Amino acid sequence: MKQVSATKGHMTLPVEVGQEEVVLDLYQRWHADALRDSDGTTMPESLAEQDSDIYSVVCLVRADQQFANQHPEYLHRKYLMSFPVTAMAETLTIQPLDGYSKDKYELDNDSDPKCWWEVRNRTTNTVIDEELWQFDSATQQVTIQQAEPYHEYTVTFMARQVWDSVSMYNALTNDWKGPRIKSLDPYHPECRAHLIQHFARWLNEHPKTTVVRFTTFAFLFVIDTGEQNQDIYRDWTGYGETVSPRALEDFEKRFGYRLTPEDFVDAGYYNGTYKAPSQRYQDWMTFVQEFVVDFAAELVKMAHENGKKTAMFQGDHWIGTEPYLESYQKIGLDINIGAVEDGVALRRLTDSTGEQTREARFYPYFFPDVFREGNDPVVESMSNWVKIRRAMLQKPLDRIGYGGYLSLANNFPNFVDHVTDISKEFGDYLQNTQGTESQKLPGKVAVLSAWGKSRSWLQNQARDQRFYVPPRPDVMEFVGNNLLECLAGLPFDVEFISFDDIIQNGIGEDVKVIINTGDANSAWSGADCWDNSDVLVALRKFVGQGGGLLGVCDPSAFQKNGRYFQLGDVFGLEKETALTMGRVAMPLSISKDHYLSQFVTDELDFGNPSYVYPQATDIAVLAAQGQHLALTARNYGKGRSVYMGNLLFNMKNARLLQHVLIWLSSNETQHHVWLSDHPFVDVAYYPKTGKVTAVNYSSEPQTLTVRNTDGELVDIRLASYEWKWISH
Amino acid sequence: MKQVSATKGHMTLPVEVGQEEVVLDLYQRWHADALRDSDGTTMPESLAEQDSDIYSVVCLVRADQQFANQHPEYLHRKYLMSFPVTAMAETLTIQPLDGYSKDKYELDNDSDPKCWWEVRNRTTNTVIDEELWQFDSATQQVTIQQAEPYHEYTVTFMARQVWDSVSMYNALTNDWKGPRIKSLDPYHPECRAHLIQHFARWLNEHPKTTVVRFTTFAFLFVIDTGEQNQDIYRDWTGYGETVSPRALEDFEKRFGYRLTPEDFVDAGYYNGTYKAPSQRYQDWMTFVQEFVVDFAAELVKMAHENGKKTAMFQGDHWIGTEPYLESYQKIGLDINIGAVEDGVALRRLTDSTGEQTREARFYPYFFPDVFREGNDPVVESMSNWVKIRRAMLQKPLDRIGYGGYLSLANNFPNFVDHVTDISKEFGDYLQNTQGTESQKLPGKVAVLSAWGKSRSWLQNQARDQRFYVPPRPDVMEFVGNNLLECLAGLPFDVEFISFDDIIQNGIGEDVKVIINTGDANSAWSGADCWDNSDVLVALRKFVGQGGGLLGVCDPSAFQKNGRYFQLGDVFGLEKETALTMGRVAMPLSISKDHYLSQFVTDELDFGNPSYVYPQATDIAVLAAQGQHLALTARNYGKGRSVYMGNLLFNMKNARLLQHVLIWLSSNETQHHVWLSDHPFVDVAYYPKTGKVTAVNYSSEPQTLTVRNTDGELVDIRLASYEWKWISH
Repeated sequence: MKQVSATKGHMTLPVEVGQEEVVLDLYQRWHADALRDSDGTTMPESLAEQDSDIYSVVCLVRADQQFANQHPEYLHRKYLMSFPVTAMAETLTIQPLDGYSKDKYELDNDSDPKCWWEVRNRTTNTVIDEELWQFDSATQQVTIQQAEPYHEYTVTFMARQVWDSVSMYNALTNDWKGPRIKSLDPYHPECRAHLIQHFARWLNEHPKTTVVRFTTFAFLFVIDTGEQNQDIYRDWTGYGETVSPRALEDFEKRFGYRLTPEDFVDAGYYNGTYKAPSQRYQDWMTFVQEFVVDFAAELVKMAHENGKKTAMFQGDHWIGTEPYLESYQKIGLDINIGAVEDGVALRRLTDSTGEQTREARFYPYFFPDVFREGNDPVVESMSNWVKIRRAMLQKPLDRIGYGGYLSLANNFPNFVDHVTDISKEFGDYLQNTQGTESQKLPGKVAVLSAWGKSRSWLQNQARDQRFYVPPRPDVMEFVGNNLLECLAGLPFDVEFISFDDIIQNGIGEDVKVIINTGDANSAWSGADCWDNSDVLVALRKFVGQGGGLLGVCDPSAFQKNGRYFQLGDVFGLEKETALTMGRVAMPLSISKDHYLSQFVTDELDFGNPSYVYPQATDIAVLAAQGQHLALTARNYGKGRSVYMGNLLFNMKNARLLQHVLIWLSSNETQHHVWLSDHPFVDVAYYPKTGKVTAVNYSSEPQTLTVRNTDGELVDIRLASYEWKWISH
Repeated sequence: MKQVSATKGHMTLPVEVGQEEVVLDLYQRWHADALRDSDGTTMPESLAEQDSDIYSVVCLVRADQQFANQHPEYLHRKYLMSFPVTAMAETLTIQPLDGYSKDKYELDNDSDPKCWWEVRNRTTNTVIDEELWQFDSATQQVTIQQAEPYHEYTVTFMARQVWDSVSMYNALTNDWKGPRIKSLDPYHPECRAHLIQHFARWLNEHPKTTVVRFTTFAFLFVIDTGEQNQDIYRDWTGYGETVSPRALEDFEKRFGYRLTPEDFVDAGYYNGTYKAPSQRYQDWMTFVQEFVVDFAAELVKMAHENGKKTAMFQGDHWIGTEPYLESYQKIGLDINIGAVEDGVALRRLTDSTGEQTREARFYPYFFPDVFREGNDPVVESMSNWVKIRRAMLQKPLDRIGYGGYLSLANNFPNFVDHVTDISKEFGDYLQNTQGTESQKLPGKVAVLSAWGKSRSWLQNQARDQRFYVPPRPDVMEFVGNNLLECLAGLPFDVEFISFDDIIQNGIGEDVKVIINTGDANSAWSGADCWDNSDVLVALRKFVGQGGGLLGVCDPSAFQKNGRYFQLGDVFGLEKETALTMGRVAMPLSISKDHYLSQFVTDELDFGNPSYVYPQATDIAVLAAQGQHLALTARNYGKGRSVYMGNLLFNMKNARLLQHVLIWLSSNETQHHVWLSDHPFVDVAYYPKTGKVTAVNYSSEPQTLTVRNTDGELVDIRLASYEWKWISH
């Protein structure tokens, strides 16, 4: 049990030059204990004298622009696919960079096109013989001979990035001035040696720094930029920007085969995180991870030898340093800092193993887009806090923090008071929980996806996300199916497993329920991972012998052998994909006498119609949208299955999920201690400190009855929005 | 030009024993000129004496029940797949008929299971070696050895049908009494000889009959029946019930290869009409068509030699006698009778080639389900009539008719008046059009599907159909995307083409617009027919050189080579199927200055959200549902493309389609004579009779301005619901 004091601070705040008084005032009111500089700021001397931890940001790959300008061969490179061009004659000319930002990308003239590029006929998906195309470096054009009219062609080329995505974002969105920053790729030994040298110097020049806060170790998230300098493709956890001829050659030595340009551009899908990965791409990820861990560990070791702690900000850098990888602990970091907008993001931060301190960076950042006249920043903060708090009750969080300009926040007294409240509540939470974990219901819940553990608690966006225009385009806000957010605040032990886990190790004996949630074709549902009879047999057996299976959206979706839902036999249903139009459906009748029926109300939100219909007579239909199944339950062997069309996040849906998981665990007849069944009140019990907590998420007073550890029923009364701690 | 007299009748009515006075009264009031007996009635002597055509129904395959009972080996057979059974041990027993009606099906004990059945592991999709399974005729069970636990198994078996689907329907739905009727398969030469003999006798016994009205020549539509005697699968135009060992053996001789049971059960999809057919199944259809045409032609010849005309009722029999097949004319029929519930059904009847008289059988039938106290049968009839009338203006219809019990209709005076009005309007239509066709806009519109011409004007149900519970389950009523119904009443020459047509013959020079409309995976959209670069090139070239392409729902949908919509390059858009979540969409802005913008109003109905987003900067977004594209237009080369998310049938949507097709034909700057642009008024011009007609479909008076053949603008004023004929 960590020793936590309520009087010591627990918050990291950004400094701001010329605003020392504001910083000091909020530092005290908000119980801060650490200050940090950031990309846009430096630490004023007067603040650096405070008795606080000093976090100093270092982003080595962007640190030495002179070196970057001298060595274009070390800049970040990536494979891009030209936008397809239709041949209208037998000779076709393609300007590979057409449609892409000329401010950001250059054709990489260090790598021989004939060796590193690829020209394809996309209509027939054939590689064009290199004798049939030429690249003219003067015109920057590729000319294809013997093209077939009305076929589409693409050139996959290696682009050199001459403007870093973050620098570009800050310049274009936040109107930051200054030169266009370039990023260096430390995979090149000469470049790495230079950066190491630079970091040694940096350590010497920052004697007051107590925590080195790394943002980007080596590679950035993927942002492809169009010719209007607009984002055209984003993948916050993608491996697209890790490529260089040198790394590809080393990959070939390490894995015994050569990757092609197509392995990266992937017909224009770019191996998006939401896609189930190929084995070749997984190999590349492993290769990159090995390098990044090695490089990061060297930097961390240097900081430690300088008597400094180390932190990593997970918002900017994820590639190769994913905290759920076993290799992550080899880096030796002390503090994980996560940008946290909701419960899922919090669990992503708090659930990883290792001894790191967990620090949540909250939204909104104190930037002018939110902290502007007429806007109330409390709204966004409160909406986030409600979700985050639920998740905090399940796994311990150690610290919190904010970013941006405190002087801007200081213009909003309501917001200052609101953060004062949050910090007070967080202090009470630390005091009462002492960094221990609340009690969970028996049995583990496993979330099955193509990624499994490596991408635990990564938001699995639903298709609806694309069609939602968020008020702030750069801030994550999830619409549509969002089971993970519901789950983030429920008292279950959760683990994330992959199809490979099941094939190689089977299903853990402690797993009581397996969840498969996501759109068809996505890594979350599983896509072609379902094209494997071993997986189907393992899951049927799991349920047949007493397990529970929860499918949401398109569980087990893969068209084969007469089924779209490969486990449709377990769920007792099928999705209409225009292949079964002749099957006659009887009008649905809603079950009123199922155990789960009592929890179904009109206020539940199952999102869009499912296009799913019953294909078993012994299925209990608990909710439907017209004739579209929304919630069904079924027994299969000794086990149980539940299907939901969608599960959007709201408090009532979340509580429904709790009841569903209890039923699927066959635990519904057990008495559970300190378990809330109230939609608006969460209760958590911390056995190691003997404390119980109850939070009312509603604006009305609420009362609920729960069972204490002695088996007695206890009433808890809460004022509106009250968060109460009870000694037990 | 046919000579049509307004005084002679134009309607066929059913007789009813004991209701001769009612029949005679309505016969005169409704301008009937023909009487028919039907399945449930026989012709009373007094009515047979009328100076009218006498239609007599004959259904040879059900005509001799004594013979059917003596020869179970000649009964209709079909392949059924047992419902999948999961092995829980290494020995698995399957009762093939489990889940199927025992009143309707028997296991066919004339065909050796080891020769004609198939056992499959559906989890691995492998055929089980026949040494590993046994059929026990005593227990009617199949036992499988060495089964793999938690794999699913099926038995595909040949079932003998001991209760005809129509007989069963009438017994269970209309409460008809009498024995359970069996149907004979005339493919067996001995059976065919017997039925021919029976028909010769029947002809002799029906001297007063002037028209032999065939219902089922040989094979029925597909209805699979579950163990509660409920319909579980329906395919009104499916070939599932045409199978016998003899026919399969002959097929092998004719085509040089053997069909397997799997070719018929198709993993449980049963080659539904909405599925793109395999080449093997198309071969089987050809085989069946050759037989049916030969048999039907023999019967028609016998009737003709007896001095009688022949008619076929297309509602009961379609298989092998599809009027759009070239072979259809070999049968030699005189009258095509179609059951007509809407405009599409009418065009299905009227658009086929050949010299046959076209007679429409209208709904509702005079049966107690509709003609019951408290119900107003005018509602259904009027709703149908509005749609049918639009389509009648485009292609000539010769006769109309009704079915059921006239005594029931006679209880509803409003309905009697309503049919009097319809008959009067129809008489005026015949008089003014003289069986000629109205003028069309220049250029053909081709509807592209996997079926093409052979299934012209067949309703392409959308996925929404499954989730709609119609008030009367046995009556077709189409919901969701329904472009064909909109098109059925518009002044365009329409033809239906297949992908094979394009590959083998190219695109006709007279085709100005190609339409592809339907759900992904369906025969209507095309499914894997889009997996063909020749097709893509032909269509790109067609548009590139000036053609128009209209895509509705999921046009060109097939996941391959980086696209879901294979012609997404022409449309300038893509559908989100969870593979492109990383692509950043700019918020849509609606074009206000496109030619088509003027026709976009809030009252248009594009159905469900499309999940389609722009992937071109030069796309004009004309309508959207949130960020889902609903209507877009784009130029491509010298041609044009339009996408619609859905197009439900209503008058405003139909008129929008007219404007879209004119724009796609690049005809928007031309003056068109007698063309309505009013959503509620149709205008048609009959150049051969010099007549113009205008119909007001609304309850309000309407005025519109149209251009006459001299190029002058003419105002037409119509009272509510007025149908006016104008001499020009």
